[in-house]
Amino acid sequence: MTNFEFFNPTKIVFGTNTIAQLDQLVPANARVMVLLGGESARKNGTLAEVKAALGAREVHEFNGIEPNPSYETLMQAVEMIRAEKLDFLLAVGGGSVIDGTKFIAAAVPFVGEPWDILTHFGGNIQSALPFGTVLTLPATGSEMNHGAVITQKATQTKLPFMNPLVFPQFSILDPSKTFTLPERQIANGVVDAFVHTIEQYLTYPANGMVQDRYAEGLLQTLIEIGPKVLAKPQDYDLRANLMWAATQALNGLIGAGVPQDWSTHMIGHELTALFDIDHARTLAVVLPASLMLRSESKREKLLQYADRVWHLHHGSEDERIAAAIEKTRDFFEAMGIKTKLSDYDLGPAAIDAVIAQLAAHGMTQLGERQDVTLEISRDILTAAL
Amino acid sequence: MTNFEFFNPTKIVFGTNTIAQLDQLVPANARVMVLLGGESARKNGTLAEVKAALGAREVHEFNGIEPNPSYETLMQAVEMIRAEKLDFLLAVGGGSVIDGTKFIAAAVPFVGEPWDILTHFGGNIQSALPFGTVLTLPATGSEMNHGAVITQKATQTKLPFMNPLVFPQFSILDPSKTFTLPERQIANGVVDAFVHTIEQYLTYPANGMVQDRYAEGLLQTLIEIGPKVLAKPQDYDLRANLMWAATQALNGLIGAGVPQDWSTHMIGHELTALFDIDHARTLAVVLPASLMLRSESKREKLLQYADRVWHLHHGSEDERIAAAIEKTRDFFEAMGIKTKLSDYDLGPAAIDAVIAQLAAHGMTQLGERQDVTLEISRDILTAAL
Repeated sequence: MTNFEFFNPTKIVFGTNTIAQLDQLVPANARVMVLLGGESARKNGTLAEVKAALGAREVHEFNGIEPNPSYETLMQAVEMIRAEKLDFLLAVGGGSVIDGTKFIAAAVPFVGEPWDILTHFGGNIQSALPFGTVLTLPATGSEMNHGAVITQKATQTKLPFMNPLVFPQFSILDPSKTFTLPERQIANGVVDAFVHTIEQYLTYPANGMVQDRYAEGLLQTLIEIGPKVLAKPQDYDLRANLMWAATQALNGLIGAGVPQDWSTHMIGHELTALFDIDHARTLAVVLPASLMLRSESKREKLLQYADRVWHLHHGSEDERIAAAIEKTRDFFEAMGIKTKLSDYDLGPAAIDAVIAQLAAHGMTQLGERQDVTLEISRDILTAAL
Repeated sequence: MTNFEFFNPTKIVFGTNTIAQLDQLVPANARVMVLLGGESARKNGTLAEVKAALGAREVHEFNGIEPNPSYETLMQAVEMIRAEKLDFLLAVGGGSVIDGTKFIAAAVPFVGEPWDILTHFGGNIQSALPFGTVLTLPATGSEMNHGAVITQKATQTKLPFMNPLVFPQFSILDPSKTFTLPERQIANGVVDAFVHTIEQYLTYPANGMVQDRYAEGLLQTLIEIGPKVLAKPQDYDLRANLMWAATQALNGLIGAGVPQDWSTHMIGHELTALFDIDHARTLAVVLPASLMLRSESKREKLLQYADRVWHLHHGSEDERIAAAIEKTRDFFEAMGIKTKLSDYDLGPAAIDAVIAQLAAHGMTQLGERQDVTLEISRDILTAAL
């Protein structure tokens, strides 16, 4: 196990009828900006519930943070918050709204051009507005971590940033708020949480026994509930387990003290930025091909994954590894998510474009061993055609 | 899954050579009281390392916080801290020193008789001194939670208290600091962490899938490393995994949103208070008997435990349950910890004394179903003779 720090001060309030607790969680004199994605929170009553809980506080609304939140949109909110001198942010939505809110929280007091926050990966943040979240879409884990990914539309650039100053103060997780989500978003959420876990687990052995067991527990949970959450959209316990698994998959715990990969995400980000494919779907395309291409350098953990997660105990080592990767692909397909570039009408020209973007963004040594060169990324994408 | 709150702001600094980071973690102008147990931190050089890291800060020392820290001893430290107007506490030791430090942190600013903190289970704490810890003994999880257990020697009363104000600000976990621990303390630590996990896991099904998988992961880790940490006292990775598993076993995570038992602890506390038996050893005595006596009300989870933790797949349900309980007992015995009251020279008279104390402390409805009456506690202890 390598040395690590673990720090996560976000307060989780989990369960039914918890939105009313906003009255205790948000300062009584706060001047609040509520950040929203589309119209769903208004239509399904969540926004009304939020506003009722906020009571007499001054509440403004900013609507329209898009999936893969854009710098251009977020800067509009930054200007409004600065103009109105608002002092507390409340994200009501999924990972995109929360990621966007993190950027806004850091950008409002930022001196200079806020895009620099992203080119410095958040290292230059000196302060941030306090904020909380009401999560409506389980997937990204953004509700309990200090990272975010923002896209600049003008340049089709998607960049992550992290800073402890953008931990949410609190996050309200009410699983019943996910009942009305479209099947596509739930499927994406399951796959997103699954691949987040894989990126921190399926690397090389580092003797992080608790981390491995936790990761395997999350993967097994997602496999067990995945098809059921689609089949039974009103089942509270299924949604609750999905929501908590997705939060746990990216709150820093399973990745503490062990190597991390993230190459699937970095390649996937370019596919989203260039071709507007859902984030989770890009992961489902890249991951199986990447595991296949890199099976030698991931050999020990792939065998552990085959054994403990998929209970594959027969056949040669190579056969068990191949079977585990196939089962992973089958799981994504069973969630209704296609796993080949051609399923998204992309061919070799798309690969050239992705490689060019990876090169432009300095993504030339990806993965837990920094051995995923542009050449390897090309091989992965070619295998995913 | 039931509604829950999860909040844990303690910063963990984990790994070798991390004590030097005290210089960044403790405020530069702090007037520090270092709290210690016996002489081991001085003898093995940890105290010197701590003092070197604290540099020019004013540092006082209080030595002699005993196992099962006593109110009487801790109040001596409270008086010294009040007299010297010290403003930061640093616990250097195991769970007893950390528990004691939590009480001191709350007692120093407490108005009135600090014993009232315990009779109110911590609910009456209004403020507490800030403190950090340097953990030298993996076992109790106190380094990353807001609970403590304190004993009043005068009345042989052992009571717990909890309050979010007594979360450590930080805890330094350097596994190499455990190399010099006596075998007995390591064995106790393994069993303590194991039973902490069981108290939050082996109850009745509540569909907390992530919590169950995490708990099973901790139990499997402890079973896997238990005998090895005794056999290879200088193995860093084994000690690191024990340390992290013990912290995870009681930091609030695996118990969030699921029922909890704790009857083994409550009965065990009386055994320690009356007969001065090591905390972990009382748990090893009470738990197997309790599981056997209560196997009907714990049936579903006992079967899950037999399946997922011990991989017992043959025989009838009753046989698998009995085998899982026997394997639990065997594990404790393999750690060199005896599991019968008679092993500690206690007979029926001791049971009468424990029952009288449980009655005096209002412990008449213990367990996840509040169905462990004094009569059941007596049956459990009788089965443990």
